[in-house]
Amino acid sequence: MAEMRHVWRLTKRPVGEIADSDLAFAPEPMPEVGDGQFLLQVGYLSLDPTNRIWMSDMEQYMPPVGLGDAMRGGVVGRVLHSRKAGVEPGMLMAGLGEWASHMVTDGTGMSPFPEIPGISIPVGFGSLGLVGPTAYFGLLDIGQPKPGEVLVVGAAAGGVGQIVGQIGKIKGCTVIGIAGGPEKCRFIVDELGFDHAIDYKSEDVGAALDRIAPDGVDINFEQVGGDIMEAVVRRMRLFGRMPLCGLISSYNATDATEPPGHWTLMLMRRLTVRGFIVTDFQARFGESFQQLAQWMLEGKLKTRQDIRPGLENARDAVKLLYSGGNFGKLLVEVSKI
Amino acid sequence: MAEMRHVWRLTKRPVGEIADSDLAFAPEPMPEVGDGQFLLQVGYLSLDPTNRIWMSDMEQYMPPVGLGDAMRGGVVGRVLHSRKAGVEPGMLMAGLGEWASHMVTDGTGMSPFPEIPGISIPVGFGSLGLVGPTAYFGLLDIGQPKPGEVLVVGAAAGGVGQIVGQIGKIKGCTVIGIAGGPEKCRFIVDELGFDHAIDYKSEDVGAALDRIAPDGVDINFEQVGGDIMEAVVRRMRLFGRMPLCGLISSYNATDATEPPGHWTLMLMRRLTVRGFIVTDFQARFGESFQQLAQWMLEGKLKTRQDIRPGLENARDAVKLLYSGGNFGKLLVEVSKI
Repeated sequence: MAEMRHVWRLTKRPVGEIADSDLAFAPEPMPEVGDGQFLLQVGYLSLDPTNRIWMSDMEQYMPPVGLGDAMRGGVVGRVLHSRKAGVEPGMLMAGLGEWASHMVTDGTGMSPFPEIPGISIPVGFGSLGLVGPTAYFGLLDIGQPKPGEVLVVGAAAGGVGQIVGQIGKIKGCTVIGIAGGPEKCRFIVDELGFDHAIDYKSEDVGAALDRIAPDGVDINFEQVGGDIMEAVVRRMRLFGRMPLCGLISSYNATDATEPPGHWTLMLMRRLTVRGFIVTDFQARFGESFQQLAQWMLEGKLKTRQDIRPGLENARDAVKLLYSGGNFGKLLVEVSKI
Repeated sequence: MAEMRHVWRLTKRPVGEIADSDLAFAPEPMPEVGDGQFLLQVGYLSLDPTNRIWMSDMEQYMPPVGLGDAMRGGVVGRVLHSRKAGVEPGMLMAGLGEWASHMVTDGTGMSPFPEIPGISIPVGFGSLGLVGPTAYFGLLDIGQPKPGEVLVVGAAAGGVGQIVGQIGKIKGCTVIGIAGGPEKCRFIVDELGFDHAIDYKSEDVGAALDRIAPDGVDINFEQVGGDIMEAVVRRMRLFGRMPLCGLISSYNATDATEPPGHWTLMLMRRLTVRGFIVTDFQARFGESFQQLAQWMLEGKLKTRQDIRPGLENARDAVKLLYSGGNFGKLLVEVSKI
């Protein structure tokens, strides 16, 4: 068994964009496995927009990562050694863990990872397990899509957006994805079956929406914020719904300005805006995983991963999320498991 | 039968506050009662914050009143003459009508007014029928109050606010009303049974909330907007709900500034904001009327009207809504019916 592990620790809170000096990567002695704990060899680390929130001390939905602490992230790994009842060596465990090659944990926030024949570990972990419930509950519970409605999803080629759009198609919506660059736009239409793509890097999003959906938007699945959100919100229809799951464009912002509230618009058009975090639906994760896996095995749902090898590259990789540099659900392959 | 009627017509769209020259009051020949129409003698005219919206050409939820048209308002009246099947002379009819002594209508937007022994016409019409459903559905359907939760209602001594707070008490909430001046504050606590009152004219609303409800607010029934809304929204708790039924502080505004969006706050605290207009619930008005009347007859619900005599005073009276000058549901008594 390895005597050392490699860990990314948060050394400073980023101001604006993540700087190299905000996170430090180093080997450390392997911690002891105490009573009720187990040792996990990390296979994949999920990188998600919320990582930037956890690095900051802004108002957020769980405690931020402490300075000097191992950086928090979604992981799946294989149990190497266990002193915890019900957890056996060789099992796959997934959940909230550390940016580390190995971790010792009592299993809080983790659960056994269900392997499904025909679905690879990074797909099952990264897309179905981790961001799948965000897409599934955000769209179905909050967005409440009905056949013939117009659904807009930003960051459409990203981990969540891909799934949102495809569930929208399964539910009979006209789906418009907003993504950056022709390759991503082609992908969401040709590969994933979205009805339309808007390339925010080369098109005016509002003008494109006016052309594609002149009667407006019923559901805006919001992950981005900023000018793109602005353009979509202005085009919401009566009784529109807006699952609010992220505002990635603001996470690196250093000033306090926010888009205007559109309170009048929410009132007059009777919009429903509901913020949510995926863990709000934790009790029902089994439902989403099963349904998404079934759709995938039936060929109705595809996902693309963007897998970057090597834990040492995690810091560079996470920055891709904020520049639009990833193409698909972003994962780091930490080891072969 | 009278050969003339008196009517308020919209002559100009107000810029900022309503000016005297925006509305003109004059006698006119009584219109003919055509086939399928009836003649109504108006008894009470309801004055409501939304009147100012209808006078403007801002984005709104029904067409604005046309220039030169009779001003629109909620009315109850007695049928004097009818050429419409099912509508007999002597019946009381209520609904959307005109700021007029008499009106000829085909009954669109009106329905028979149910008289209930023990409940006067202005109470039944103004409070239970007209603003009752706003309070009832906004709080119960959107706010979803649970025992022990903290409910804040602004404009608490107004027509809607009075009822919202009392339903909140019936549902077991801690109810905080925000109102202007000691008389209104005393009224909502001593007469209506609210737990707390905040006098926005003499207290800092945020500081008062911090003292009264240090753990924050679960439901904000929003009618006001502006700085008061700002203070409440900042104190919303996780999974808070915000029925958004009005933004009266902005209706007279001449600039386009709005309070900031608090998108981040909505996301992190997983708030639900839902705009609504009372007519969204029209199919269920019977339910709210019956339940509110029952509570009233059981002594669990009181309402206070502010009844101003004389149709000629309607223009001066409506301005009271925007200065906080009314005390209770504002009505004009147009004639004894």
